Amino acid sequence: MSFSPILASTVTTWHSETDVVVLGFGGAGACAAIEAHDNGARVAIFEAASAAGGSTALSSAELYLGGGTEVQKACGYDDTVDAMYGYLMDANGPQADADKVRAYAEGSADHLAWLKSLGVPFKNSEYVERAMMAPTDDCLLYTGSEKAWPYVERYKPAPRGHNLEVKGDHGGPLFMKLMAEAVAEHGIDTHFDARALRLIVDDSRRVVGVVVRMDMQSHYIRAERGVILCCGGFVMNEAMVAKYAPDLTKATTPIGNPNDTGAGIQMGLSVGAAAINMHEGFVSLPYYPPASLTYGILINAQGQRFINEDAYHGRVGAFLLRQDLPVYFVMTIDDYGDYETASYLSAPIAGTGETLEELAEELNLPQGALAATVADYNSAAAAAVDPLFHKSAEWLKPLEGALVALDCSPGQGAFFPYFTLGGLDTLPTGEVLDFQGDVISGLYAAGRTACGVPRRGDGYASGTSVGDATFSGRRAGRAAAQQLESN
Amino acid sequence: MSFSPILASTVTTWHSETDVVVLGFGGAGACAAIEAHDNGARVAIFEAASAAGGSTALSSAELYLGGGTEVQKACGYDDTVDAMYGYLMDANGPQADADKVRAYAEGSADHLAWLKSLGVPFKNSEYVERAMMAPTDDCLLYTGSEKAWPYVERYKPAPRGHNLEVKGDHGGPLFMKLMAEAVAEHGIDTHFDARALRLIVDDSRRVVGVVVRMDMQSHYIRAERGVILCCGGFVMNEAMVAKYAPDLTKATTPIGNPNDTGAGIQMGLSVGAAAINMHEGFVSLPYYPPASLTYGILINAQGQRFINEDAYHGRVGAFLLRQDLPVYFVMTIDDYGDYETASYLSAPIAGTGETLEELAEELNLPQGALAATVADYNSAAAAAVDPLFHKSAEWLKPLEGALVALDCSPGQGAFFPYFTLGGLDTLPTGEVLDFQGDVISGLYAAGRTACGVPRRGDGYASGTSVGDATFSGRRAGRAAAQQLESN
Repeated sequence: MSFSPILASTVTTWHSETDVVVLGFGGAGACAAIEAHDNGARVAIFEAASAAGGSTALSSAELYLGGGTEVQKACGYDDTVDAMYGYLMDANGPQADADKVRAYAEGSADHLAWLKSLGVPFKNSEYVERAMMAPTDDCLLYTGSEKAWPYVERYKPAPRGHNLEVKGDHGGPLFMKLMAEAVAEHGIDTHFDARALRLIVDDSRRVVGVVVRMDMQSHYIRAERGVILCCGGFVMNEAMVAKYAPDLTKATTPIGNPNDTGAGIQMGLSVGAAAINMHEGFVSLPYYPPASLTYGILINAQGQRFINEDAYHGRVGAFLLRQDLPVYFVMTIDDYGDYETASYLSAPIAGTGETLEELAEELNLPQGALAATVADYNSAAAAAVDPLFHKSAEWLKPLEGALVALDCSPGQGAFFPYFTLGGLDTLPTGEVLDFQGDVISGLYAAGRTACGVPRRGDGYASGTSVGDATFSGRRAGRAAAQQLESN
Repeated sequence: MSFSPILASTVTTWHSETDVVVLGFGGAGACAAIEAHDNGARVAIFEAASAAGGSTALSSAELYLGGGTEVQKACGYDDTVDAMYGYLMDANGPQADADKVRAYAEGSADHLAWLKSLGVPFKNSEYVERAMMAPTDDCLLYTGSEKAWPYVERYKPAPRGHNLEVKGDHGGPLFMKLMAEAVAEHGIDTHFDARALRLIVDDSRRVVGVVVRMDMQSHYIRAERGVILCCGGFVMNEAMVAKYAPDLTKATTPIGNPNDTGAGIQMGLSVGAAAINMHEGFVSLPYYPPASLTYGILINAQGQRFINEDAYHGRVGAFLLRQDLPVYFVMTIDDYGDYETASYLSAPIAGTGETLEELAEELNLPQGALAATVADYNSAAAAAVDPLFHKSAEWLKPLEGALVALDCSPGQGAFFPYFTLGGLDTLPTGEVLDFQGDVISGLYAAGRTACGVPRRGDGYASGTSVGDATFSGRRAGRAAAQQLESN
């Protein structure tokens, strides 16, 4: 398989011609196509799979939006653009892209309104339990570490995860069904089983088209205004993950659709684009539901706690991967509750005990370490203040009576889903940059083919992927339709 | 400044022609040039600075070599290729390059002999103190974490840092002086104040030359057999560090020569090369000498220890950057010793106390945390076994009597030197690979322009940079002279 570009001057037959070519029909591609169309461009979408969907359809389609969305206001939250911006900048660390985060925070409320105008349903309600996604048709949910230390002390928290009005974890399929309908209603030209592999460039290296395999033939498609890469990330490409994101190989289960093979990133690289943040990824320890596990403590090989256990599951996963193994999750038998049926975690039981001493005997930890850590934790619970890790009082409860420990060491059975957060370097407009920071004419990227708003596993919040994919897709669609070229 | 390549067909005047062009006259470039010459090629070196040296001349020029070098044998160590290979593979984590590490371990003893044949002096002796480099003219020194947990339990330790026979930290200047003399004796064509910015490619995208700025003019240099990029890393390029290695921005002081601006990496990118491992870097907490600080403990914001303090200073630095701040180094007043004159660390005193209680009052730590950690540590010292972090018994000593704490939080005054460990993807031969893993004809890279043996800050060992640079330089020189092309 070669991603090398083709010179336009060598193309003898153009099979078709349009203004904007969108590669990939997931959340990013759908939004890019609609927005390009609405900005006066003829648009064609080419999707490698047999139907629309991409990884968005496989997700919960939570959208991380804030700064005062309609739903936030209806639920009584006065979230601000600055609070959302501050939180996202902090959580995404030194590699956060201030321009992108600012545009996203400022455009967030409008983005929700735009999705609603396309028929995507959101209920003006909140799901108040600690959960990875809302199991009801309620909308708002805390999907990051906004209420957890250290962020809670720095930025006024508000729930920003927006779930579709659909019961159960079915947001993704519904979202993409509605997006596909909107694309059809816009009369956008759509092709399935259509895999793009090579870009076509003119003599000045402007991207002017793409070669697409359809019906076992190479079709040469001319794009007058630009090509938008919305081909997902590279989590399904084992060789690319090993080469660019080696730390992710400790996790167990890549999350994405089978076409998340990095083809879009590689097409970008083939014309000199820069790929950035390629080492970063989201890694989850999906330990809630049941929310009651949050009362427990995570300990490492030293028997030390290492994080406030009320943080977001992705932050916990990122911290966990930095510890010496084994890592155990210790909780009371009461809080273990319906773990076996309610949890996604699959971590095996490492030990149980009617008393702490009994449990300690079963775990392979340094003498006295567990006892000291639990004594500390129980003091914190009694005082309703956790001086070490600042877990909120709401989740502090003494570890007393019968206890259970789950083995959360990678490789011992626990489920560690992961996906990539690196991609092509782009401007907030979606224009792709080369390694020197110059715009590559005619080339745009959005969703996980680009490096967008979410940039760190330890600061990830659910909903920033679909939120960023759809938002960046729209920006790229608009820029391509307008043939925007910033340099 | 543009790094875009030039088409050979557009070059009207070639100013000179040779077989192998070497860009950069540090350790990698010198060795590449000599080896290319010895393999029958005409060679020209172009160096941006006014003299030979590169970052090698600024370093200690320790070389990490093992598997049974002449010096190791003379000092009574029966190091093996497998022990060295195992240690380096483990320390460099999932991104370690097995082929490069194998070649390096197997070729190490011969590499030392080759350097000696060029007149580089090594004494058959060992410096036995714990130090970052030998202050005497002794040769062998432990420069990694070979004797520290977890490696000591897995691979038979041996000292592999080889220092030149020169008193004080003067190995680098001597090494490059000898290399420059060897290059001159070989009659190799050498140009200074000669900055290369653009590669020249033919219509098949083979690299056939380079444009060099000399005397304020562009010189078009033809390279019949190949161009070897030995231009160092990118630690001096703030924008590149921020973009590719954001976590390094927490450290304080870039280590390298002013031309470590990533020009070689960018020239590679300009012709489609892949850059890998760009996020990784070496970050040191240079706390020894005095070795006596090793008796102390490092604690984080939770008052917890987080590493065996007898590990290599780079491993300690990498772990430190993952902690919640503040981070303190706590030791007895006796072990503080001549810290103020002997140390490179510059960490300010955070507190002192005639007793532990007095010190605890001065440090902003959770109530009781320091007392509990010190009690644990003192028990470990009494038992001569550290069950938590496996610090070796040699460095376990109770923290009793008057104590001192240094503030080692980044940004509070402590010196955190750093450099980059990412670079162009190459075969062990030095041939540069594109993003699809194909060889780019005519292009080679060595030293820190390539991604070589050292790949992780938390597993770094001193001497792997100059060791790898000189070793990989030779391999690239040989491959270019032989016009080796693996695909």
